[in-house]
Amino acid sequence: MRRKLIVVSNRGPLSYGTGPDRELVARRGGGGLATALRGLLSLHDVTWIASAISAEDRQLAGEARAETARDGAPFRLRFVAHDEQAFDRYYNVVANPMLWFVQHYLWELAYTPRIDQAFHVAWDEGYAAVNGGFAAAVLDELDREPDAAVFFHDYHLYLAPRLVRTAAPEATLMHFVHVPWAQPDYWHILPERIRFAIHDGVLANDVIGFHCDRWRQNFLDCVRDILGEEGGVRAITAPISVDVAEFERLATADEVLAAEREIVDRRPEKLIVRVDRTDPSKNIVRGFRSFELYLEAHPEMHRRVGMLALLDPSRLDVPEYSEYVGAVQREARRVNDRFEENGWTPVDMQIADDFPRSVAAYKQFDVLLVNATMDGMNLVAKEAPLVNERDGVLLLSENTGAFAELSDWAVPLNPFDVEAQAEAIDVALTMDERERRDRLQAIRAHVRENDVNAWIELQLAALDAVVPAARH
Amino acid sequence: MRRKLIVVSNRGPLSYGTGPDRELVARRGGGGLATALRGLLSLHDVTWIASAISAEDRQLAGEARAETARDGAPFRLRFVAHDEQAFDRYYNVVANPMLWFVQHYLWELAYTPRIDQAFHVAWDEGYAAVNGGFAAAVLDELDREPDAAVFFHDYHLYLAPRLVRTAAPEATLMHFVHVPWAQPDYWHILPERIRFAIHDGVLANDVIGFHCDRWRQNFLDCVRDILGEEGGVRAITAPISVDVAEFERLATADEVLAAEREIVDRRPEKLIVRVDRTDPSKNIVRGFRSFELYLEAHPEMHRRVGMLALLDPSRLDVPEYSEYVGAVQREARRVNDRFEENGWTPVDMQIADDFPRSVAAYKQFDVLLVNATMDGMNLVAKEAPLVNERDGVLLLSENTGAFAELSDWAVPLNPFDVEAQAEAIDVALTMDERERRDRLQAIRAHVRENDVNAWIELQLAALDAVVPAARH
Repeated sequence: MRRKLIVVSNRGPLSYGTGPDRELVARRGGGGLATALRGLLSLHDVTWIASAISAEDRQLAGEARAETARDGAPFRLRFVAHDEQAFDRYYNVVANPMLWFVQHYLWELAYTPRIDQAFHVAWDEGYAAVNGGFAAAVLDELDREPDAAVFFHDYHLYLAPRLVRTAAPEATLMHFVHVPWAQPDYWHILPERIRFAIHDGVLANDVIGFHCDRWRQNFLDCVRDILGEEGGVRAITAPISVDVAEFERLATADEVLAAEREIVDRRPEKLIVRVDRTDPSKNIVRGFRSFELYLEAHPEMHRRVGMLALLDPSRLDVPEYSEYVGAVQREARRVNDRFEENGWTPVDMQIADDFPRSVAAYKQFDVLLVNATMDGMNLVAKEAPLVNERDGVLLLSENTGAFAELSDWAVPLNPFDVEAQAEAIDVALTMDERERRDRLQAIRAHVRENDVNAWIELQLAALDAVVPAARH
Repeated sequence: MRRKLIVVSNRGPLSYGTGPDRELVARRGGGGLATALRGLLSLHDVTWIASAISAEDRQLAGEARAETARDGAPFRLRFVAHDEQAFDRYYNVVANPMLWFVQHYLWELAYTPRIDQAFHVAWDEGYAAVNGGFAAAVLDELDREPDAAVFFHDYHLYLAPRLVRTAAPEATLMHFVHVPWAQPDYWHILPERIRFAIHDGVLANDVIGFHCDRWRQNFLDCVRDILGEEGGVRAITAPISVDVAEFERLATADEVLAAEREIVDRRPEKLIVRVDRTDPSKNIVRGFRSFELYLEAHPEMHRRVGMLALLDPSRLDVPEYSEYVGAVQREARRVNDRFEENGWTPVDMQIADDFPRSVAAYKQFDVLLVNATMDGMNLVAKEAPLVNERDGVLLLSENTGAFAELSDWAVPLNPFDVEAQAEAIDVALTMDERERRDRLQAIRAHVRENDVNAWIELQLAALDAVVPAARH
């Protein structure tokens, strides 16, 4: 059944730049959401609403343009041009760090955050204003296609659904939350009017999706605590996943093979890989410390094992993120200063946005370290095993959404326990080949069965359950 | 009905030192728990088990001694002498900061805590060992009085109840938790074996008491999440309170009057008072910042208003606590450097353990600032209004246990919102006399009605409900 859909997310599937002959050039991000939603574009009539990021996007803003996806599927793309100061406040003050830090339990509450007048202004004139801009664009598109269903994405857009609902009471609205939902006490960091507006805004949707039951249940607990409401909410668990065919294609792409040759030339006998954005929730500092503890306990493995940390720089306009990069660099340096020998650097840290290199590392890991302190899903835990060629072992934080699916086959980690993480590295490196293969195959089978299309199907089924069939 | 009770707490009602003639001298703490439980001593047969703190206590440890309370009531006191290294680990590594920081949401999770081998050792050879020592003393006393009910207190003793229960299945055990209970996600900071042992240990009690429904409900949620159990737990809400007669006596005690004269001589027209331990949960830094914002917005109040911060130094063997004192000093200095004029120091900060001065300040406040980020109860919010003589206004954090009782009459605070706190100071300082008096009288009436005896009665009633009457 072909559906009319309006997808709304902060970042769209492409952004425009200017080419050598001053022509407009579309630049496609490698990013997760655009890839995950590709299946929608080819099977349904999609209008995508996203923030104008570049100057070129801003020139194109205001009405939808006809675009084609990589596979040739047509879709419409509408940029929303926000006031630049409003966008800065919305993105760099409210969404990151405030909402991200609340939803991942990252504040140091004795000292941070300090909610001051600047934050209140950022909320009113930044976050609320940008959400208002998105809502206006959605309503405009609903005028054109009143039966289209609207799919909001993530923590940037908590206020838009209520704004749309108020103006279009009959609209079909769905929201997918890609981050953890904190439990009520932690939401109480935010002033009452703000925590109320967030939950009230999200509750204006017909369906709300989460990556695992844990975040979903936390959301329902918050609705009760913060809004004083029970029931009436259709909250679903739909774990995001991987485009399997895409990753199989990538595994043999030229640029991945080139990157892989470089890794093979440099790699020690055993390779521990981590691939993350430089985000304080990713727990990179403790990961290096755990590796140090492992090396301290296993001098026989010196020169034979290395950690390859491929880190994508992230949100460097936000001071908490810049500081975190500094802490990550300092810790890697400290471990290397302690153990480095001629020809062996224990931690090979590369801070760059290099997706082909990440896929190459996925193929080459003996141990994959995913130790996030909190993570909505963590797609690395699904992507890397799919293409790994060394019967590698997944070490997985129990605070990731992925843990709900993969815990039977991963080595579980408490992300705060560096001693246990060092021991888990040893467990993984000494696991016998048969067990490693069985575990990896099981993860792979699970991801193949529960791929990105299954994720989309779960959402569409939930939508069908709330919307009269005639509406499609 | 006179009952046989065994009270167990880390600190007892007194500790011994050596006097000028080398004789043993009992030193009584002004501390909350000993005061709050005084009502038990005069009405029931109490044996109190506590850690030996001083060298003199250690010499007296091993068997109970006959003691008398301040009012002459007899009770028995038994010191437990722990291994000194075990006690240090139990107190300065596990109880503070780890358990305190978990239960008050104080960690900065991108960086702290790092649970390492030293922590695991501190848990096994410190916290568990000291709890084992307490359990052995309890079992010894139960041999003497098998029908006595055991009252455990607070976060130092989470493992002792299970140890006692295993050896004495028929014993009557109760535990009172004086701190907040965090929600399940935050308990997941601790390794699985440790968070399990804590909840399993507390659940070995017949009755578990909390200061407000919020912490009680969080505990029940944790039992479900961490132990996978439902029901079978008798968890009660019993808000601790004040010995009203004692505070009325104190208000006219010589040393309080002397301290009050000093305050009156120095005070500006309007006095904002805070009285706290130097604990990171008390939110002293943001309190100074809020006062700065108030002064910035109200130049007409310069020289006319001051903040008196009486801060009791706390747990300075723990680095997080020492650092917090530094941050508090720096912030007070900054505000004073900005606004100080001849003869007017906006922030008068005194770091000392001086209870008479605190009571004097209670009498003199125009505004009482209680802005804790999280607080099991916060007794200052009940004590100070009882003796205040200026129709002072209570500013109260919504994250204190006291808020559940006093929210109708206090000016509510979001403790993270410095802008709102500055505005609340203005609201309090401009409130008309009639309203101030009505609010203060209502708080006073509530505390008088719900005094410390009511707190004890609630606990004994819960105990009677689970124990066959014949057992007393």
